[in-house]
Amino acid sequence: MKIRIAGTGLYLPPKIQKSEELAKMIDKSAEWIKKKSGVKERRVSNIDVDKMGAIAGRLALEAGNCEVPDLIINASGVPKQTLPDTSIFMQKEMGFKGIPSFSIHSTCLSFITAFHNASCLLNSGVYKHILIISSDRGTIGRNFNEPESASLLGDGAAAVLVERSEEHQNSELIHHLMKTWPEGCNLTEVRGGGTNKHPLDPQTSQDDNLFSMDGPAVYKIARKQVYKILLDTLKSSGVKKGEIDWVIPHQASGKAVDAFASVGGFDKKKVVDIIGKYGNCVAASVPMALSIAIEDQRIQRGDLVLLIGTGAGLSTACALICY
Amino acid sequence: MKIRIAGTGLYLPPKIQKSEELAKMIDKSAEWIKKKSGVKERRVSNIDVDKMGAIAGRLALEAGNCEVPDLIINASGVPKQTLPDTSIFMQKEMGFKGIPSFSIHSTCLSFITAFHNASCLLNSGVYKHILIISSDRGTIGRNFNEPESASLLGDGAAAVLVERSEEHQNSELIHHLMKTWPEGCNLTEVRGGGTNKHPLDPQTSQDDNLFSMDGPAVYKIARKQVYKILLDTLKSSGVKKGEIDWVIPHQASGKAVDAFASVGGFDKKKVVDIIGKYGNCVAASVPMALSIAIEDQRIQRGDLVLLIGTGAGLSTACALICY
Repeated sequence: MKIRIAGTGLYLPPKIQKSEELAKMIDKSAEWIKKKSGVKERRVSNIDVDKMGAIAGRLALEAGNCEVPDLIINASGVPKQTLPDTSIFMQKEMGFKGIPSFSIHSTCLSFITAFHNASCLLNSGVYKHILIISSDRGTIGRNFNEPESASLLGDGAAAVLVERSEEHQNSELIHHLMKTWPEGCNLTEVRGGGTNKHPLDPQTSQDDNLFSMDGPAVYKIARKQVYKILLDTLKSSGVKKGEIDWVIPHQASGKAVDAFASVGGFDKKKVVDIIGKYGNCVAASVPMALSIAIEDQRIQRGDLVLLIGTGAGLSTACALICY
Repeated sequence: MKIRIAGTGLYLPPKIQKSEELAKMIDKSAEWIKKKSGVKERRVSNIDVDKMGAIAGRLALEAGNCEVPDLIINASGVPKQTLPDTSIFMQKEMGFKGIPSFSIHSTCLSFITAFHNASCLLNSGVYKHILIISSDRGTIGRNFNEPESASLLGDGAAAVLVERSEEHQNSELIHHLMKTWPEGCNLTEVRGGGTNKHPLDPQTSQDDNLFSMDGPAVYKIARKQVYKILLDTLKSSGVKKGEIDWVIPHQASGKAVDAFASVGGFDKKKVVDIIGKYGNCVAASVPMALSIAIEDQRIQRGDLVLLIGTGAGLSTACALICY
């Protein structure tokens, strides 16, 4: 599909929490945190997800020379509130009105899913400028009694403006693939917040409202399934592994990012790695890594870029694009 | 877009709560409830949204002679839990694995939004059989201290299997339109469940976790904006009001459904009205009304059907289809 990333925007909360500081809160050492999660520091936001996302959104519009998008998709992992959906609060923060807005949710893969949907919407001709915003504030949901998962999470937001590419431009979505394996539905959870463990149900515990992950079990399924969709994508697209210029993985953990070189066979320099500096920012990780590598000019027009990762559930997805 | 509803499925929880019974819980009379909300009775589910949705999903697949869909979209108003997204639990309940699954959320308009996205996805050729499931259990979130909104909500689920239509079939999505007006973002809310009023924040109140709506204020914006998208749709599609065979409105309230005849100028017999029997079932209302009118054979192949309504935020949307 002939689509093109016209602009990107980032919001990195100014407050930095070093692993030395977090170590005291989870009764571990900074070395333990870095070894287990790969995270040296993470950002902690004092403003909510809609404000974070709106800042990133404004920057993406500016970078793409677009005054007003004609669709806003919120592609975050966790909402601002149950109703209405977060996209509307983002639109309000950006000072717009009348722009259709909704959310697409597949936890950490929300951006990749939204990007694919946006490509099909652009392809249909209904919309011309789609702003996708991923904004997550995972630090609120950390369970300090579960040191490994608490070590991972960080806050951040990124936005991407997507448009149809012109005849003379090479930009396109070459291939998209997603698979969902419900056997992993209890491996990464926040059980509260919905009808299952309702906040007012006396049987809902404190832990039900916090993030919980069985990292090793997730890794076991993920490694196999991510490798499979990678092979499928190479086969279907006819693109060779060596032709891919940049791999933008979900920043699930240091180990998960490293696996693209150690198991996946990619040159380590081609794998965009921001886990050490920002942690796992849930759905914001993929567009943050993408925006950072575009903004520091590593990614150039014409480059082949592979967005790839896992989401709670467990889902795997990838999108191979020509930037 | 050449798409076709291949099958529909419904789940109506067996437990009926009459307005006479609810009246005692909110210190009002049954007559007051019926007058304010238009709801005579509603269903109250004992099973959770994923199980409800899976039953409807199975029936839609059966009706459409489809063994396995290649995409499952959850298009509900409220999730089962914060992570992972509800589509995965629905897939698990249906006994599938490996099928890509995600959620699309625009509160009461989630089905219409998902239907439009599904049409574009089918049009792109990536997917062939998309199962959209809307399942809501609003009765859990009723605030009995807010009698008017508590009168409205009911539980239910519906699913629709969408496929590309064949050359010789007339079925298509003729027109889709959505607009979002963030001035209404605080008029219909469940403030809890996300990062805004986190369940563990001591400042989060009981009411923050319950449904709250300023009905008259919503109606004031909604009536104007729904009428506008109706006129826009008729103009853009070239279809005359009298040519539309069936109007499937979101069952927001008795007054909102009646307005399609009294204000909108449609023949009352053409407006599918299920509010009295099932209440406002959030995102499930539109596909429930659609499924009921297809299953009782009111809607016939070739009929022009207008799905239309409002969602918290406030959003308005419609989809004009040839069934």
